Amino acid sequence: MEIAAPYLMFLGDVHDQLAAKTATGVVHWRRADCIGQVRFDGCQANLGLPDMTVADGAASGARTLVIGAVNPGGVLPQHWESAVLEALDAGMDVASGLHMRLTDNPVIAGRAAERGRQLFDVRHPRGAFPTGKGEKRPGKRLLTVGTDCSVGKMYTSLAITEEMRQRGWKADFRATGQTGILIAGSGVSVDAVVSDFISGATETLCPANDPDHWDVMEGQGSLFHPSFAGVTIGLIHGSQPDALVMCHEPTRTRMRNVQHPIPPLAKCIDWHVEAATLTNPDCRCIGIAVNTSALDDAASADCLKRIEDEAGLPAVDPVRTGVARLVDALS
Amino acid sequence: MEIAAPYLMFLGDVHDQLAAKTATGVVHWRRADCIGQVRFDGCQANLGLPDMTVADGAASGARTLVIGAVNPGGVLPQHWESAVLEALDAGMDVASGLHMRLTDNPVIAGRAAERGRQLFDVRHPRGAFPTGKGEKRPGKRLLTVGTDCSVGKMYTSLAITEEMRQRGWKADFRATGQTGILIAGSGVSVDAVVSDFISGATETLCPANDPDHWDVMEGQGSLFHPSFAGVTIGLIHGSQPDALVMCHEPTRTRMRNVQHPIPPLAKCIDWHVEAATLTNPDCRCIGIAVNTSALDDAASADCLKRIEDEAGLPAVDPVRTGVARLVDALS
Repeated sequence: MEIAAPYLMFLGDVHDQLAAKTATGVVHWRRADCIGQVRFDGCQANLGLPDMTVADGAASGARTLVIGAVNPGGVLPQHWESAVLEALDAGMDVASGLHMRLTDNPVIAGRAAERGRQLFDVRHPRGAFPTGKGEKRPGKRLLTVGTDCSVGKMYTSLAITEEMRQRGWKADFRATGQTGILIAGSGVSVDAVVSDFISGATETLCPANDPDHWDVMEGQGSLFHPSFAGVTIGLIHGSQPDALVMCHEPTRTRMRNVQHPIPPLAKCIDWHVEAATLTNPDCRCIGIAVNTSALDDAASADCLKRIEDEAGLPAVDPVRTGVARLVDALS
Repeated sequence: MEIAAPYLMFLGDVHDQLAAKTATGVVHWRRADCIGQVRFDGCQANLGLPDMTVADGAASGARTLVIGAVNPGGVLPQHWESAVLEALDAGMDVASGLHMRLTDNPVIAGRAAERGRQLFDVRHPRGAFPTGKGEKRPGKRLLTVGTDCSVGKMYTSLAITEEMRQRGWKADFRATGQTGILIAGSGVSVDAVVSDFISGATETLCPANDPDHWDVMEGQGSLFHPSFAGVTIGLIHGSQPDALVMCHEPTRTRMRNVQHPIPPLAKCIDWHVEAATLTNPDCRCIGIAVNTSALDDAASADCLKRIEDEAGLPAVDPVRTGVARLVDALS
């Protein structure tokens, strides 16, 4: 699976910017590959791209229409369907981050087959996976983990990949969630894989590689999150990471969507490293990526210093300070 | 979902007793509810039940035909189909432990709908699950965990449930795998649940109950198994166990289907208890169930004594010694 660029970003008529969160992430990391946005009357989101019709986009060379907006329920509204069909007719593939599968819509699936185009339902893994084997593979791997969900694992992973590449290292971002997959053009939504195959699916995502190549794996969840720890531990075992980066949001007090407190950072690091030693006894945590977006500059600097002193590891904010010090720690 | 007894056990023409492992487990634990076996010419398995045709079974009051045999690939061979249709025509439901879904076979699904009968594909969870919340629910829960897969978690859980009931305790076995589900008549194959919902599915399996009621949860996998730890941790978090029983096979040196060594027992207990504290801070390991089937009587006794001394916890072999001492530890 490889989603072809350039992308034409479809927003429909979503009512706020948050509903276009996926598209915003794609545009942030793949700006050069996003040639325009398709917005219907009443759309309240804006990606800062040229407004286009689907036909304009096709004429400008777009190869994939990306549905990067969500509406309640994650379904494709009836009045968005015509844009999807128009894209297929114009020779484009369509990629969707919606819960509802495009391939389950007989009209859309039929048209795609007729036109010889591909549909990418990026929340839904394609094909079957083996069970994980846990055997050491050549190549190096870094996995982002966290004290909670939604603390910046994808952003941190992408920033690290970019930093590595700027240094001339061989590095690939490996996507495990829908936004990451649209950014990378490939990947596996591991939270949608059947439980028996979490670590196996992860192994297929970062197969044997050159000894000096880095797979930078997008983490999910947390070992301390009572909803999603299964996804997290499968990702850890399948990634067999040489390096972990702990991602953290310092102002949060409870984990996302549950009543559980955020775990102490040191304990959280210890547990994740300990779990990782099952498939890579040499795994270590090389630093902490702190999302200080809720703090002002002074408070952010204080926070990073305090965390760094307490943990004895480099602490950065990927947005404010960049991730160079994390990559330095791998040299 | 509740699979109706009595059962008529279907073996088809499987080539050895091992292919009837699921059926053997059902007959062991539900002997009184298994009224006969259906075997075709050439069948090399035997459950020790009266041989019957499907029509005989229906006439004797069987309410469900149970396909408790597997053949390579887990599919329903063409020549087994007529028995399934005959059972539906005779007013029976059909339950299957095969990988292939009966509900995906249009002839069988159509006939079931026509006759108003139910099909139970017990390897495949029905319906949607919520994500886990990790909130404490009334009632007590015991979960079997293990140093590996296939070390006796289901057997131990069933033996503990039986022991509790003999003492007049309120107790229910909660099945998480296909054999357990056929034994209990209900349950969820957690390894087939989508990763995001492992702990949530587990929570639905052991909802709030009387304060003095025990859910005895069938465990799966091991936190130390590189293929299946995600299933295990989701089961732990969703069960929020008050008590863990560690299951162990003392002669095994490598984990099932992988190259990893069996973890040290003490470390394995510590990790499982530690993981459980996320949703139940009072969780403790109350004993060890050792499968000593590979040892003679003297070696078994020595082994149990050594493990008990080292761990400082009761160690039993559920088959040889029973599980009374484990249940004593809960009093």
